[in-house]
Amino acid sequence: MSRVYNFSAGPAVLPEEVLQQAADEMLDYQGSGMSVMEMSHRSKVYDSIIKTAEADLRELMNIPDNYKVLFLQGGASQQFAMIPMNLMKNKKAAYIVTGQWAKKAFQEAQIYGEAVKVASSEDETFSYIPDCSDLDIPEDADYVYICENNTIYGTKYRTLPNAKGHILVADVSSCFLSEPVDVSKYGIIYGGVQKNIGPAGVVIVIIREDLITEDTLPGTPTMLKYKTHADAESLYNTPPAYGIYICGKVFQWIKNMGGLEVMKQRNEEKAKILYDFLDESKMFQGTVRKEDRSLMNVPFVTGDKDLDAKFVKEAEAAGFVNLKGHRTVGGMRASIYNAMPREGVEKLVAFMKKFEEEN
Amino acid sequence: MSRVYNFSAGPAVLPEEVLQQAADEMLDYQGSGMSVMEMSHRSKVYDSIIKTAEADLRELMNIPDNYKVLFLQGGASQQFAMIPMNLMKNKKAAYIVTGQWAKKAFQEAQIYGEAVKVASSEDETFSYIPDCSDLDIPEDADYVYICENNTIYGTKYRTLPNAKGHILVADVSSCFLSEPVDVSKYGIIYGGVQKNIGPAGVVIVIIREDLITEDTLPGTPTMLKYKTHADAESLYNTPPAYGIYICGKVFQWIKNMGGLEVMKQRNEEKAKILYDFLDESKMFQGTVRKEDRSLMNVPFVTGDKDLDAKFVKEAEAAGFVNLKGHRTVGGMRASIYNAMPREGVEKLVAFMKKFEEEN
Repeated sequence: MSRVYNFSAGPAVLPEEVLQQAADEMLDYQGSGMSVMEMSHRSKVYDSIIKTAEADLRELMNIPDNYKVLFLQGGASQQFAMIPMNLMKNKKAAYIVTGQWAKKAFQEAQIYGEAVKVASSEDETFSYIPDCSDLDIPEDADYVYICENNTIYGTKYRTLPNAKGHILVADVSSCFLSEPVDVSKYGIIYGGVQKNIGPAGVVIVIIREDLITEDTLPGTPTMLKYKTHADAESLYNTPPAYGIYICGKVFQWIKNMGGLEVMKQRNEEKAKILYDFLDESKMFQGTVRKEDRSLMNVPFVTGDKDLDAKFVKEAEAAGFVNLKGHRTVGGMRASIYNAMPREGVEKLVAFMKKFEEEN
Repeated sequence: MSRVYNFSAGPAVLPEEVLQQAADEMLDYQGSGMSVMEMSHRSKVYDSIIKTAEADLRELMNIPDNYKVLFLQGGASQQFAMIPMNLMKNKKAAYIVTGQWAKKAFQEAQIYGEAVKVASSEDETFSYIPDCSDLDIPEDADYVYICENNTIYGTKYRTLPNAKGHILVADVSSCFLSEPVDVSKYGIIYGGVQKNIGPAGVVIVIIREDLITEDTLPGTPTMLKYKTHADAESLYNTPPAYGIYICGKVFQWIKNMGGLEVMKQRNEEKAKILYDFLDESKMFQGTVRKEDRSLMNVPFVTGDKDLDAKFVKEAEAAGFVNLKGHRTVGGMRASIYNAMPREGVEKLVAFMKKFEEEN
């Protein structure tokens, strides 16, 4: 077995210890005589798995008691509809468009009411986060929506928008558990787990209890009501049980590493190694305004498409994989999530230096 | 490691060979240097996994070219809404209610139009399949809906209803791949995979191409349109990639066993062992009309709640687990899906005989 350094934007690298445990437990989970894949989701042993996962997440993120944690399906894309269907009481919401995923959420919301684009960074290919300190948010907006870390463009909100008393809803798919967060500032904070937490097919929604009501838009499917899942503690129907089990193992791994403060420190150190090199390199340049740089997704270019392609190819041959930029922007992108070891970033930078010298 | 005989109704037993392969490949899938959980769903290696899975399923079920195969999320419960949202052009559909899941589908459809209950077996606790040879189906019904195998009650349609020219939609969650099926008789044939195919979190929808249209009900979320997923070949957003990979391994396993004809023969033999015993036992009785018995889910009772509980407890201690009946019906239920070896059924019957002698 030979593991590569996997810089995929998601699904993405997971901690090797977690995968090893999953392999060891595949045929017999802790003496149960079966795989977690084979367990009734209503069994005592699975109940302990999902309850422990939730408790560990609550501890890691310091989630207040008046928030529910839901393990759902359908990815962020399904939340794009679920959020307005559940929250658009006045049929109006404010969207800040900082990339493709925020834009998709904004477009989906237009099916259900008036989605108002209150800020955007599309004018400069989403390479920055707009000033959100004093936006013109409609008085009757039901919520303000952001995508907090933009996977494709490599930007991150350093300060949250001034929502002016409105409910803040944030997609944190690509920065989930990368640093401490004050959950009480959000009405909903949610994300697909397939970047920083676990296998694709689980979306975690952390939602303030007063936002969970029967009062959804007409025609909302039972499965798309937060209340359905909150009332049933994520067991209304069979959940993506194995994925939740892996998420739970990652929560344990983060706890063992020291929690989110330690994650933040590690992530800042890793990102600094890469950004410092990009700032001094004559061949490679970052594409994002410095103050808005993501700790998780680092896009960069040489300015020459052929050279970009040569780099990606040679990097792959050297064991640094999935460095090709998103198909909509080109260039390169290194996603350096929690599970990417510091060593992986150091070796990548050494490889980039060597490539620069040789080309 | 000691594996039990797992009679869970779902999530349920999987072939040991499949689990062993999954364990072996957990840290490095076939030289890729990563787990399938860590792979970009747009990578070449994952593309081959999902394409091979689809091709194998098409071969096993002999799926005609004018049907699409979709790997989706949200379980059957989400299909209960997705089906009317996509198919109810005339806002009318006919439902045959043969158990809890058909009933839930029927109730959900009422959100979107007129769902007409054209037959039901609720009068006798869903212990039989009604005569569906000449039902009063409204002329303008958009489709006729059935749940083909009723997991909780242990019934199965031996012949499909006479849909009188209407589109037939079938939930086959608990009989998926248990025997050959003529796909061309259905408009949609779908099921959650967590009973006979793979881990919870994947639902497979086989849909005739002419039913995939832009013309969905107003307010249908993008993620709940079949067209969204058909156009993107199940990669509109990140799919439940690891679950699909396990499904693919189970398809391979079934192919290696000889395909669906062989599965049917095995399943009939296994079910006969259990039903023959129930028919001769003085203590245990089956609860279903003989001609409607499921090959997959076998409910039975002693007629004495305390004795039922004693049996379930002693069986568990002997390594026969998850035999307790569904919480809504009580008694016992042995689910004997494809992956349950004949030996497991034989040993269960031997245990039941011994229990009967001793009690």
